[in-house]
Amino acid sequence: MADDRLDETLPTPTPTPARARLEAEAPRKRARPVTPSTGRLRPLAVEQICLLDGFWHERQTRNAGATIPHCDRWILRMGWLANFHVAADGRGPSDRQGREFTDTAVYNLLEALAWESARAANISADARFGEIARIVASAQRPDGYLNTNFGQPGARPRYSDLEWGHELFCIGHLLQAGVARAQAVGLDDQLVAVAVRAADHVCKTFGPNGVTAICGHPEIEMALVEFYRLTGQRRYLEQARLFIERRGRGLLRAGEFGAQYFQDDIPIREAHVLHGHAVRALYLAAGAVDVAVETDDTELLNAVVDQWENTVARRTYITGGMGSRHFGESFGDDYELSPDRAYCETCAGVASIMLCWRLLLATGEARFADHIERALFNIVATSPGDDGTSFFYTNTLHRRIAGEVGDGDTASERAASGQRAPWYTVACCPTNLARLFASLGAYVATSSATGIQIHQYATARITAELDGDAVELEVRTSYPHDGRVTVRVHETPARPWTLSMRVPAWASGASMTVAGAVLAPQGGYLSAERTWQPGDEAVLDLPIRPRWTYAPDEIDAIRGCVALERGPVVYCVERPAEQTPHGQNFDINQIVINTDVEAQPCDRDAGTADSDAWLAEGSQRLEPDGDGSAWPYQPQPAVSRVTPARIVFTPYHSWGNRGPSTMRVWVPVGPPATGATS
Amino acid sequence: MADDRLDETLPTPTPTPARARLEAEAPRKRARPVTPSTGRLRPLAVEQICLLDGFWHERQTRNAGATIPHCDRWILRMGWLANFHVAADGRGPSDRQGREFTDTAVYNLLEALAWESARAANISADARFGEIARIVASAQRPDGYLNTNFGQPGARPRYSDLEWGHELFCIGHLLQAGVARAQAVGLDDQLVAVAVRAADHVCKTFGPNGVTAICGHPEIEMALVEFYRLTGQRRYLEQARLFIERRGRGLLRAGEFGAQYFQDDIPIREAHVLHGHAVRALYLAAGAVDVAVETDDTELLNAVVDQWENTVARRTYITGGMGSRHFGESFGDDYELSPDRAYCETCAGVASIMLCWRLLLATGEARFADHIERALFNIVATSPGDDGTSFFYTNTLHRRIAGEVGDGDTASERAASGQRAPWYTVACCPTNLARLFASLGAYVATSSATGIQIHQYATARITAELDGDAVELEVRTSYPHDGRVTVRVHETPARPWTLSMRVPAWASGASMTVAGAVLAPQGGYLSAERTWQPGDEAVLDLPIRPRWTYAPDEIDAIRGCVALERGPVVYCVERPAEQTPHGQNFDINQIVINTDVEAQPCDRDAGTADSDAWLAEGSQRLEPDGDGSAWPYQPQPAVSRVTPARIVFTPYHSWGNRGPSTMRVWVPVGPPATGATS
Repeated sequence: MADDRLDETLPTPTPTPARARLEAEAPRKRARPVTPSTGRLRPLAVEQICLLDGFWHERQTRNAGATIPHCDRWILRMGWLANFHVAADGRGPSDRQGREFTDTAVYNLLEALAWESARAANISADARFGEIARIVASAQRPDGYLNTNFGQPGARPRYSDLEWGHELFCIGHLLQAGVARAQAVGLDDQLVAVAVRAADHVCKTFGPNGVTAICGHPEIEMALVEFYRLTGQRRYLEQARLFIERRGRGLLRAGEFGAQYFQDDIPIREAHVLHGHAVRALYLAAGAVDVAVETDDTELLNAVVDQWENTVARRTYITGGMGSRHFGESFGDDYELSPDRAYCETCAGVASIMLCWRLLLATGEARFADHIERALFNIVATSPGDDGTSFFYTNTLHRRIAGEVGDGDTASERAASGQRAPWYTVACCPTNLARLFASLGAYVATSSATGIQIHQYATARITAELDGDAVELEVRTSYPHDGRVTVRVHETPARPWTLSMRVPAWASGASMTVAGAVLAPQGGYLSAERTWQPGDEAVLDLPIRPRWTYAPDEIDAIRGCVALERGPVVYCVERPAEQTPHGQNFDINQIVINTDVEAQPCDRDAGTADSDAWLAEGSQRLEPDGDGSAWPYQPQPAVSRVTPARIVFTPYHSWGNRGPSTMRVWVPVGPPATGATS
Repeated sequence: MADDRLDETLPTPTPTPARARLEAEAPRKRARPVTPSTGRLRPLAVEQICLLDGFWHERQTRNAGATIPHCDRWILRMGWLANFHVAADGRGPSDRQGREFTDTAVYNLLEALAWESARAANISADARFGEIARIVASAQRPDGYLNTNFGQPGARPRYSDLEWGHELFCIGHLLQAGVARAQAVGLDDQLVAVAVRAADHVCKTFGPNGVTAICGHPEIEMALVEFYRLTGQRRYLEQARLFIERRGRGLLRAGEFGAQYFQDDIPIREAHVLHGHAVRALYLAAGAVDVAVETDDTELLNAVVDQWENTVARRTYITGGMGSRHFGESFGDDYELSPDRAYCETCAGVASIMLCWRLLLATGEARFADHIERALFNIVATSPGDDGTSFFYTNTLHRRIAGEVGDGDTASERAASGQRAPWYTVACCPTNLARLFASLGAYVATSSATGIQIHQYATARITAELDGDAVELEVRTSYPHDGRVTVRVHETPARPWTLSMRVPAWASGASMTVAGAVLAPQGGYLSAERTWQPGDEAVLDLPIRPRWTYAPDEIDAIRGCVALERGPVVYCVERPAEQTPHGQNFDINQIVINTDVEAQPCDRDAGTADSDAWLAEGSQRLEPDGDGSAWPYQPQPAVSRVTPARIVFTPYHSWGNRGPSTMRVWVPVGPPATGATS
């Protein structure tokens, strides 16, 4: 099944630069989430970047060992895989389980299994992929249509509810699973064949001579471009371009959330900020970048960059989270960034990384890699629990009351829980995380004509080719606990090339040392061009100190507050309901921070060895002496008695792992209290 | 039709104190929204308190002349009255228009017409009532069931969706229309007969021997108690009590919003704060007070008072608005009071007044009348536009971007608009306002064994009886523009009685002058006991000065901000997109206020005669000098250049009447800028 029989299975393949490259490479060495044919940087494959140790290796391993099997079990338990049997048997909707988009979870699981089998040559993942693919294939109609919710006897007709039906969204995920699979094992594969038929069905149905329509949930756009990149068939690219251009012209019926929910209110070229449903907006923008790159459409690319800039400047949380509103799971207005109602859907974090990755490859600009890092450490690392089998659907920045103890065995509504849940009735996040973690290595580094770029820091082995010559690098680091990253060259061509290492925007004072020379950063990267020898080392030093971070005045909801960051990690103050680690026995809603004092490592004072905990000086407000009046708004500012407090900050991504708790990222700044420390 | 044939139309009437009183009074002198049989204060009827001039008279007149006919027209236009024809004809759901609860709009319109005909002896209102009542009556089933959405051929069966079907909610509003009608014209009336049959149907279906169930939307509880008060039939009270006691025990299927949305998560006696869907919570609490009062259930009454206190202290906006969340239209957690996402549904404002009115009658405590005043001036007065034919569904406290210009002729989604809309697909608010405005006089004053209490201030004629002797008072005031309220006694018994006038909690320094003696307030009222003579006057002076109001530290979303209030009126800073009254040409998101300087009347400086506008000193932030970095969170607090600005505050209730605009109630406090005033 590893044969690469591209030319045999697809008619009239037109070579493209991407495809030519694809063919030139060895099989099983090209599993990459995105394979643009042009752009400043060139992605490496999941097989080329092997995470060996540390923060992300731990999570990728947990994903393989816990999360993927967990998703598989829950998909079975919820009947979502059985839905394909129901469709294959021609049974009606009364036998079908779950919401309209459950097929997607199956496809995302397939994609995760495909990356996993490519990344780790995982035979059981490969076998499971085959089993599920057979079931999926059985439900496909002769004309290529595939959906378990529409078009069956007694069910609603195909494409009768483009606003909410998610049919093209589902097919998009099917195509992405197909692409991952083809990259992992070649094109001669049952699921790949299913995806080809589905893609052709989409082009026929919605092409220039078909229905002028779009799907309520973007996704098919980037999937079709990737399918074009895989196959060289230009009709897929053209179909993606059509979907992009059709959007924003009111083709969908606006419902309670309005046309902007679907990004159908304004053409993507004319918008200046991401808006509406956050995941929809980000998937659409990612698809637009793909189309822009493959059609050399600078105007479209610049439009998305402009939207991204304004979104990051005005509609993004410090965690990198996007989407302020529970209502419509949407972006809010500019500066509407309330911490307690932050929706910050996990999938929007994943989608934001997908968008930034495309922009990074296209432009080579470090700011996109910065944002990937922020979303990785503070959204993607936050959603799954330490067990790898429970997940936050939304990622709030302030939890005033502790959630209820869950039983760990019940599917939750999407945003209902203050704690991680094992599954959701709208279960996009777990499998979306699974496919990202399985392919995470690919986001670590890129190559270009002139060298290798390292964007994310993890202990890893990186192999690449520079003009046909092999490069092998070994990266060692305990990042983000420590800021030192050592790159050792194991194999290299005997000619000059440039090693570039990203310098995050927060890392002022960063330096790189190569052969005794200390280099200074330029344009977001520290770069060393030289004729590298095996055994050479480059040592990057990033200043990882806790730092107080402030928000602009325009973000009303966190006026007068400060957050603690350390390296790429956002911290929080958490108080588990059931225990008080580090003696943290105050109400998190009654504290203020004295920012004149730097945060100190917690183990020095608290007798713990938790190097992730930092201690700050502050005060705790005591109960007010008020007259007990029920009305809270008074003609004088509140004056509270305070007592000194030592406040422990822990990484935001680790919150909620010790049972129900209260938590906040932004803490008010206040003057120090006098008196004894509480 | 004015005959009072109570005993002829209802079987086995059991006299109750309330009914005995009802019978003792003259017909057409008893149209009151609530008629408890016990309690500290006794309501007067809409015929007994005639608003003659000023703020509320203007709005009541506009309600009669514009809003009620507007509602009537839109109900016709939307097909919601025709739905009763559809049901009467036994036609199926394909002929029916609108959401499941549209019957309610028709019943609320009927109730408004009933109050209007009682209040103003309005013959055309009376006639229109009769026309609509005939159509409603035609759709009633022989067993008393009445709903246009369920139980028809092809429609879902009766009570098959108690969570969302709103059948008992609709019947509740039918009963309330029936009560208003009976109080206005007597019991011999077609709509009253329809309501009696519907109430009996409810008791039979859901009584002790019927289905143990509750309605997803409370309302039937208070309607049944009022029906008991009207008829003396104890089964209605018992049925209301059953519905109250059944709630909170998981009888409804919890959906995406959870059981707390329906207040079905915890029995009402055990809850400590209002929670879930705000209107549902408030209607339920009002019904619980009614049951508590009629069954002498102090525990239940105290539970509601406790919930009210905690809700007002932690879950209420300065406007008196309740409900922080768009998602689920619900209360948020304690102190979750973001101004920009304030939902503050208009109907929750109405419902809050209904609850407070019941608590005021039961306890005689001024704080409940204070809250009524706050909700009246800042929610109920805010929702309708100056035209009386457009309405805010939600009442935000901060609008960062101006809404779009509406065409004034299209029904909106409930929360979609940044401007008032003529109608909503969920159109509860317009008719809910209509019935409140039409009965508003009844909320102005009460009587008791010892005297008359004036709770709300408006130029009005008040007639009452004290132990069978007539009292007539004339109130003159330009409140809330001015704080002087003069009460002149026109008719009085020749024995001592007490005139009490409420002193709002904000009015420190209030005084009342009677016959040269200056009195000081006690327990929220200024009271004078004397043998009044015709011609005597009592003069209340409330200190109406603009005042800066501060929020407690716990409300994170408005930290460092201040609001301007004057008397009962909350002010705001508004900037219409199309014009700049008073030269207000700054971005409302870029201002800070210097609270060291008192606000001044605007006409002194701005050359306008608008006594409602007040001018404050402040600063305007200029564009930051930053490096253009897209990332907003930085290691230093933002430092902005500022320029002095004179900031105009206008009443919040008047905002949005001059086209799309930006607006905020809470404004950051900042140091004064140096340099010339911009």
